[in-house]
Amino acid sequence: MTSLLLRNTRPMGAAATDIAILDGRFAATGTPLPEGAEVIDCEGAILAPGLVEAHTHLDKSLLGLPWYRNEVGPRLIDKIENERAVKVSLGLHPQVQSERQALLSVSKGTTHIRSHVDVDTEHGLAGIEGVAETRARLAGIVDIEIVAFPQSGMMIRPGTAELMDAALSAGADVVGGLDPCGIDRDPKAHLDIVFALAAKHGKPVDIHLHERDALGAFSMELILERTKALGMEGLVTVSHAFCLGMADRAAAAALTEALAEARVHIITTAPASTAVPAVKELAAAGVLTGAGSDGIRDTWGPYGNADMLERAMLIGLRNNLRRDDELALAFDICTRGGAAIMALPGYGLAPGDRADAVLLTGETLAEAIVTRAPRPLVVKGGRVVARDGAALRPAP
Amino acid sequence: MTSLLLRNTRPMGAAATDIAILDGRFAATGTPLPEGAEVIDCEGAILAPGLVEAHTHLDKSLLGLPWYRNEVGPRLIDKIENERAVKVSLGLHPQVQSERQALLSVSKGTTHIRSHVDVDTEHGLAGIEGVAETRARLAGIVDIEIVAFPQSGMMIRPGTAELMDAALSAGADVVGGLDPCGIDRDPKAHLDIVFALAAKHGKPVDIHLHERDALGAFSMELILERTKALGMEGLVTVSHAFCLGMADRAAAAALTEALAEARVHIITTAPASTAVPAVKELAAAGVLTGAGSDGIRDTWGPYGNADMLERAMLIGLRNNLRRDDELALAFDICTRGGAAIMALPGYGLAPGDRADAVLLTGETLAEAIVTRAPRPLVVKGGRVVARDGAALRPAP
Repeated sequence: MTSLLLRNTRPMGAAATDIAILDGRFAATGTPLPEGAEVIDCEGAILAPGLVEAHTHLDKSLLGLPWYRNEVGPRLIDKIENERAVKVSLGLHPQVQSERQALLSVSKGTTHIRSHVDVDTEHGLAGIEGVAETRARLAGIVDIEIVAFPQSGMMIRPGTAELMDAALSAGADVVGGLDPCGIDRDPKAHLDIVFALAAKHGKPVDIHLHERDALGAFSMELILERTKALGMEGLVTVSHAFCLGMADRAAAAALTEALAEARVHIITTAPASTAVPAVKELAAAGVLTGAGSDGIRDTWGPYGNADMLERAMLIGLRNNLRRDDELALAFDICTRGGAAIMALPGYGLAPGDRADAVLLTGETLAEAIVTRAPRPLVVKGGRVVARDGAALRPAP
Repeated sequence: MTSLLLRNTRPMGAAATDIAILDGRFAATGTPLPEGAEVIDCEGAILAPGLVEAHTHLDKSLLGLPWYRNEVGPRLIDKIENERAVKVSLGLHPQVQSERQALLSVSKGTTHIRSHVDVDTEHGLAGIEGVAETRARLAGIVDIEIVAFPQSGMMIRPGTAELMDAALSAGADVVGGLDPCGIDRDPKAHLDIVFALAAKHGKPVDIHLHERDALGAFSMELILERTKALGMEGLVTVSHAFCLGMADRAAAAALTEALAEARVHIITTAPASTAVPAVKELAAAGVLTGAGSDGIRDTWGPYGNADMLERAMLIGLRNNLRRDDELALAFDICTRGGAAIMALPGYGLAPGDRADAVLLTGETLAEAIVTRAPRPLVVKGGRVVARDGAALRPAP
């Protein structure tokens, strides 16, 4: 059953109407539905396209396990090394964990996920294989894009680049990267490998860049140079990009202009404790921006609930967005922005678009963000996949 | 009925036990309860003392009204002037609005509230009278402390100081103040009036200080000087105190030491978009720290749900608290810290303490913070006031 009539719903908060879904796609007003198509009374709830989780780590969540007592050290490398060890000591199962988290996302109205998945010389492709299996199991419930992610570094751990190559052959969709200076200590070599893998496999790039200030700006320049040299405009994303939060706003503005020119995208998680890209500045410059939860309940930290409406709120709080038009920007980042970065075909609410959508409770989109009530309904390809805040498929 | 047996509950996450409440207070283990005392199976939930909302504005919430479309200008004074006007245009009723917000707090497990309440020459004491009426109506459900708050300035609006004096005579518990430089343009006169009112009425002080960097540090020095000169150590609080987030960490550390020495307290809302006091630095220096939601769903901004567990999460996110012992600090600020600042008698879970408490769902306190599930039970003076996330008394 992928034909459906959503009665009495308000697309993006507009006036109430009836929305028909035919064969998994939104239909033009007045399109007749097949005999016996389900009719759902939406009771005036807002209809929005599915939320887009554009940056998370499905393979490493500890959801469903006993509480993990976090006593990890403060440095980035402490967290990376602790995680590799804990995966073994807890016997963490990437397939099970990724299915748990993905279904939590579904319950919150997310219809598309981009997940970075660890590739390293200790765990090989176990993460990639596990998340790929979850992707297959959840086909028709949520779309999952896999980024091969060298979490432990490539240059500092020989053999990783070969594993990245194998991961991309095995079905990873995007080439990941990580702090070319801060972690890998050799920015030229790191980025040359990332972009060579992208060229070899014909796949886009999404690089974690936590490096601050001038250091991060330097790495970002190297990314921009390679993007233009290889004609990869529109295919490269920088996640986090904390350097854009640098105190030197003129330098940040120049870098932002360069991103717009090369059509390099930004994905933010809007953390409150560090400098971050200013989403209004990115929007003004025309830089495509998406958002994600980052790790959810993992060895890095206990936070996260996979709710991209909560992420919109956190983007709003971080960027001091108070006006309704400003909250609309936060919502756009958590929907259309991520979808455009992932180049999702047929994303939206127009006739012909794929019926991947969520009902939101609230008088306005802004109210939906600040109240974050359980989602009454989530549909994927016209099929109901969650109701009243719960995914229909039980988690493993 | 203020005697009660809480069966199978885990005080602060410790091993499960039974906790008796006799005549509104926690009783020693084994104390016999009166015939017919209610027994509640807590199913292993964590028992904590009631959450403490130490900084909010009960009189100005728009809860329960149609969505307020925020199109307000960016400056502080834009928001202040817009609010005075909107109170009239919406016919905002301080009693009704404060009761709505206070009952929302109760539903989340808050048992004590410190509310700043506007006093100005346009609205006079209407806010104070409205919140005082709510305080009387909700006696036995939640305790409300009223701060007379010159939101629109005192020196720049003649007549306000006299109204502040009248508010304190009429039942306000605390003398408020606001940006002696930034808003009132005359820091000496502003603070001299605040402290003179405190001396006259024998009441403590709680001053909003949004001023940044060196300006805020200057105002804070003036507050410290008056605190010591008047022997008011332990009776003065600075809310927000953004200047403690200044880039010059040595200057912030010196100021923090001075706060500790004068026993001046800090209340934070941990906003993500501006510099804030670092809670670990305050704790290390011995500065008593509480927390609050600030305005909830008002003309200043749409955020807030009165959940002090969410505030603990936001404190954690803002201060990069990831370890369990760090989340314990965030929880402490949202409970014991605010209680100590408000000098609440008998606050805690020890025998003899007032039975103001909340059940939390989670394996640990940290899990309770990150999941923020509806509170199974809230008790005030041993009386059940909320169950399963809903206050028993209906909101107006």
